[in-house]
Amino acid sequence: MVDKMDYVHGYSDRENSRLCDQASTLTMLLHHDTIYPSGSRVLEAGCGVGAQTVILARNSPKASITSIDISGESVEKARLLTEKEGVTNVSFQVADIFDLPFEEETFDHVFICFVLEHLKNPLDALLSVKKVLKKEGTITVIEGDHGSSYFYPRSDEAMQTIKCLINIQELLGGNSLIGRELYPLLNRAGFKSVSISPRMVYVDSSKPDLVEGFTKNTFNAMVEGVREQALELKMIDEKTWTKGINDLYRAAGQEGTFCYTFFKGTATK
Amino acid sequence: MVDKMDYVHGYSDRENSRLCDQASTLTMLLHHDTIYPSGSRVLEAGCGVGAQTVILARNSPKASITSIDISGESVEKARLLTEKEGVTNVSFQVADIFDLPFEEETFDHVFICFVLEHLKNPLDALLSVKKVLKKEGTITVIEGDHGSSYFYPRSDEAMQTIKCLINIQELLGGNSLIGRELYPLLNRAGFKSVSISPRMVYVDSSKPDLVEGFTKNTFNAMVEGVREQALELKMIDEKTWTKGINDLYRAAGQEGTFCYTFFKGTATK
Repeated sequence: MVDKMDYVHGYSDRENSRLCDQASTLTMLLHHDTIYPSGSRVLEAGCGVGAQTVILARNSPKASITSIDISGESVEKARLLTEKEGVTNVSFQVADIFDLPFEEETFDHVFICFVLEHLKNPLDALLSVKKVLKKEGTITVIEGDHGSSYFYPRSDEAMQTIKCLINIQELLGGNSLIGRELYPLLNRAGFKSVSISPRMVYVDSSKPDLVEGFTKNTFNAMVEGVREQALELKMIDEKTWTKGINDLYRAAGQEGTFCYTFFKGTATK
Repeated sequence: MVDKMDYVHGYSDRENSRLCDQASTLTMLLHHDTIYPSGSRVLEAGCGVGAQTVILARNSPKASITSIDISGESVEKARLLTEKEGVTNVSFQVADIFDLPFEEETFDHVFICFVLEHLKNPLDALLSVKKVLKKEGTITVIEGDHGSSYFYPRSDEAMQTIKCLINIQELLGGNSLIGRELYPLLNRAGFKSVSISPRMVYVDSSKPDLVEGFTKNTFNAMVEGVREQALELKMIDEKTWTKGINDLYRAAGQEGTFCYTFFKGTATK
């Protein structure tokens, strides 16, 4: 089962829709301070289905963005999405982040969002993009950290379902706890002036948009997405799973609260 | 052992110094937006040794602050501290938060910081202070949440030492995971316009003041403070404890990162 999928979130239509919901809810929190100047060349490494690409391109309408992804199918979806959204400053390419088809020091800026967490060797990915980045160019990395999730009412079963997601991502060679690790990673890759900014999402029922857009449709949907694998791998039994997922939705209820933190790292070459 | 102490942090001199270190490091993060108008009457319920009192009084120099605590010894220390610091707008009183010696609707504002986490029934405390609060008066509550701590490099042993702190506080009738619960608590107490603002502390070695002032001298010192109880209660063995504490200090090292979140709730009567 696990060998068949390389990407923990899969490539289903529900998943594409989830990634786009997530992008619009979190846009301001994650992206408001990433604005590239007119004429600058930006590499988006790992664009997936283009959920972040559209935001990135809109925030920097006069920058020239090159978005790559290893999956041809995803690149095609990203291309269609940007066309549909009327975004014109992005060119797409199917390419491997570990073997980039660009000259050294091609780009003024590199942007990586929700990618390192899926890679077996994120440090090599950083070293690879560093090569194609100009001297004094900047890198921006945004990653989540599933270990930053906690909620009220507390529930051991709900924590176990989250642990399944973390473990499955780890079995696939990824690290969903990478957010807390951006500081040492960027430093080890030899970047300068590394600065990490945590972006915490706190949700209670006074914020119904976040309850729907983040807790339910982003986080809970992501956990629910590994149900089959978790049961098949006997990481959890069905009864515990069902209770855990119910408890995650209870934390999205009237009396519930939910916390999650993204990390945004910036540095220069 | 546990019966002898009511307050998880104890009353030692090292502890008083830790509470004051903590207060100055976190001042801006927690207190910058609490400023009471000239002439307003403010109740600080549970002032302890006065670490927050001094900040509160300085930020609102023309408000009239009444600070109470159940411990006469703490109130005396708080009084000495404010005298030493030249603060003159605070009067102190030994009093029980559950049985306040004030008329109903006496105060314009109530301020509670790091108190509810130590109480067996925080809801009753909120109902009690609500009585002495005027209609349309505000309440401000600041609490931590030890379950919000995570760090790099990860360590199961370090997590176990934190769990000891959480469990000992629970044995004493407290709840060190109360931060995430402020929203339902304030609502259940019947307050209106409840708004919760998380205040996350993210520390890496680019912030040496926070490494010293928060990770080492506040958080790690707090965990280390329950060593004897944890070992005596056989919650953990000595080898695991030592490894765990070493790992907490490793997270305060060159490659380490440390995260903790406080919650600040405000509401009106």
